[in-house]
Amino acid sequence: MPQDILLRADEGAIATLTLNAPERLNALSLAMLDALARAFADLAADPAIRVVVLRAAGRAFSAGHDLREIQAARAAPDGGAAGFARLFDRCAAVMQAIPALPQPVIAEVQGVATAAGCQLVASCDMAVAADGARFGVNGVNIGLFCATPMVALTRAIAPRAAFEMLVTGEMIDAARARELGLVNRVVPADRLRAETRALAATIAAKRMAAVRIGKEAFHAQAGLPLAEAYRLAGAAMVTNLMRPETAGDIDAFLDRRPARQDP
Amino acid sequence: MPQDILLRADEGAIATLTLNAPERLNALSLAMLDALARAFADLAADPAIRVVVLRAAGRAFSAGHDLREIQAARAAPDGGAAGFARLFDRCAAVMQAIPALPQPVIAEVQGVATAAGCQLVASCDMAVAADGARFGVNGVNIGLFCATPMVALTRAIAPRAAFEMLVTGEMIDAARARELGLVNRVVPADRLRAETRALAATIAAKRMAAVRIGKEAFHAQAGLPLAEAYRLAGAAMVTNLMRPETAGDIDAFLDRRPARQDP
Amino acid sequence: MPQDILLRADEGAIATLTLNAPERLNALSLAMLDALARAFADLAADPAIRVVVLRAAGRAFSAGHDLREIQAARAAPDGGAAGFARLFDRCAAVMQAIPALPQPVIAEVQGVATAAGCQLVASCDMAVAADGARFGVNGVNIGLFCATPMVALTRAIAPRAAFEMLVTGEMIDAARARELGLVNRVVPADRLRAETRALAATIAAKRMAAVRIGKEAFHAQAGLPLAEAYRLAGAAMVTNLMRPETAGDIDAFLDRRPARQDP
Repeated sequence: MPQDILLRADEGAIATLTLNAPERLNALSLAMLDALARAFADLAADPAIRVVVLRAAGRAFSAGHDLREIQAARAAPDGGAAGFARLFDRCAAVMQAIPALPQPVIAEVQGVATAAGCQLVASCDMAVAADGARFGVNGVNIGLFCATPMVALTRAIAPRAAFEMLVTGEMIDAARARELGLVNRVVPADRLRAETRALAATIAAKRMAAVRIGKEAFHAQAGLPLAEAYRLAGAAMVTNLMRPETAGDIDAFLDRRPARQDP
Repeated sequence: MPQDILLRADEGAIATLTLNAPERLNALSLAMLDALARAFADLAADPAIRVVVLRAAGRAFSAGHDLREIQAARAAPDGGAAGFARLFDRCAAVMQAIPALPQPVIAEVQGVATAAGCQLVASCDMAVAADGARFGVNGVNIGLFCATPMVALTRAIAPRAAFEMLVTGEMIDAARARELGLVNRVVPADRLRAETRALAATIAAKRMAAVRIGKEAFHAQAGLPLAEAYRLAGAAMVTNLMRPETAGDIDAFLDRRPARQDP
Repeated sequence: MPQDILLRADEGAIATLTLNAPERLNALSLAMLDALARAFADLAADPAIRVVVLRAAGRAFSAGHDLREIQAARAAPDGGAAGFARLFDRCAAVMQAIPALPQPVIAEVQGVATAAGCQLVASCDMAVAADGARFGVNGVNIGLFCATPMVALTRAIAPRAAFEMLVTGEMIDAARARELGLVNRVVPADRLRAETRALAATIAAKRMAAVRIGKEAFHAQAGLPLAEAYRLAGAAMVTNLMRPETAGDIDAFLDRRPARQDP
């Protein structure tokens, strides 16, 4: 029986997904994309999970699409066109499933995150990187411009820095990735698991309803005109305030009592 | 007679508004929001004022909404829902009044600026911070996600840094706030007033019409497609050039004479 | 016969345009704008050119619009209004021609780039600056707010930093310009030509079709909602993959053979 290419392990309210095809540098094959889509669908329906960590086995986070699979698709009568279109549809659906998840998703990155692997990092809500991690949208080096990774990347970092990465194919290190806003935290490699868990635990300790209301509003208001964004966000505040536990939390704060947590 | 919760003091063309409820950490109560709304309406109609500084009395800039007032609103038959909706409408109107003002507005920040207090900083056109200032959207720590502060914050700083602040509730210091673009200048605490005044005076010395045309165009073109933005901005340039004083200013520059100022 | 105000020199696949009115600090006169428009039209139709460098002769990159020409236009019966409108239309068309070009355009900046000169830098896809270069949108200092430069600037850097530059008229140095994302690389002044050429050569060595597909998609997807952006970018990936040379490039990569370049 083959090894699972995507592992899930839950610890309390934190679910950890591990890309588990290290010998292929965790390529985002169709099988891997399908496994991610299923895992995200399960998580979306799982009320016990408050935070998701997305990590990878082996020395790399992910080197992007599976190039052998892409080349094999050329054998179709149409030269691969329909298969390629399905591949990028499926990949885009997986990437968009991350902001659509109710839980915050943290990428935990070691080694290289390139092309669609970099897109996956940029599609997560946050990222923690080992200090040796490197990021690139380097498809241009093999004649294939990283157009879909660009969608996520240009929504995370300043446009001219993204353009440079895309047309030069050059890698950036973890420190530069944090400077640009792609990565939230850079930590020593041997602290990567612990620091990512600590961040996840910080979020998991918050009221789940507040975090879910907030994440949904975060993505819904992005890019809207100011007045529309405020209407949407104001409605989220009212929903949050009318939750039964919120009144108690605010009372506890005002009385200097410790906040209670969700059961 | 109670102390005014919002003070206004004019020095020449610079108006300074001071949040004056230091014992409540300058909470944005309904009374404070109404006072700000009135003050902004007055300033919008005041041709003598060229720059506005928004500062706060005491050790904090503002800790955000008045939580006691929020809890008291729960006594209404609907549990507070209508009152909360009115509160966030009013707050959003005040925040949007700042970009709509003809004058640039500079936040002068010491101590903490949290939740709607951080939103107020992010809603000003610029901010100067004392080196000990700290910023947070920490409502999530008491079960209330800072959805409305998020609207202003995500329009000022990179999205993934904003997400981290929102879901962790953690504070950032003034240096990080400048790195992220929330704050323009960080100065020693004992220089805060002087440095903010100097920035205000620099702007007040410019032609008022040019600054007003410019600020209006700045906010009007934000987020528009490039061609539309250029149409709008081109029209602003023509309006500015056709002002009677502009011809003289450009002549003076070409003749290496000192520029004249507005009377 | 007068000296050409815009020079073009091709070296292999790299075209270099040189603003050549150093005695006027390379003012963007109508003649200069027309020369740029013609040069960009020629480049758009030139399949031999893969990268464009835009540089300037003399001690400054460009000090912006030609103020003497602007003042002369006031002699028209309408006081200049129609002429000003035509000027900003033409200027906006030139600025928008840069992202519309199929080739990446790199600004090579020494000395000052101010007002429309700064706009020109911000309109290029990337910029390399000498360490002594300075940038400003300082029209406000002579009563003319840099509204059209603002359109390009606010799409390149964080809004509050842009606002400060616009209302204060103050200059920023090259290091700060890189920090803000206006400039990609800062190099010693005596390395400016060499480093810009090296960057151009890096891009020129990529497959031309991939870079052209990529640049077009980069600008087309900017600002679109996520799902629309992914549809557009996915279609670009399929087009790129179906190019005859792409299959060979990926095979070469998988076989660890050196990538071939375009003939």
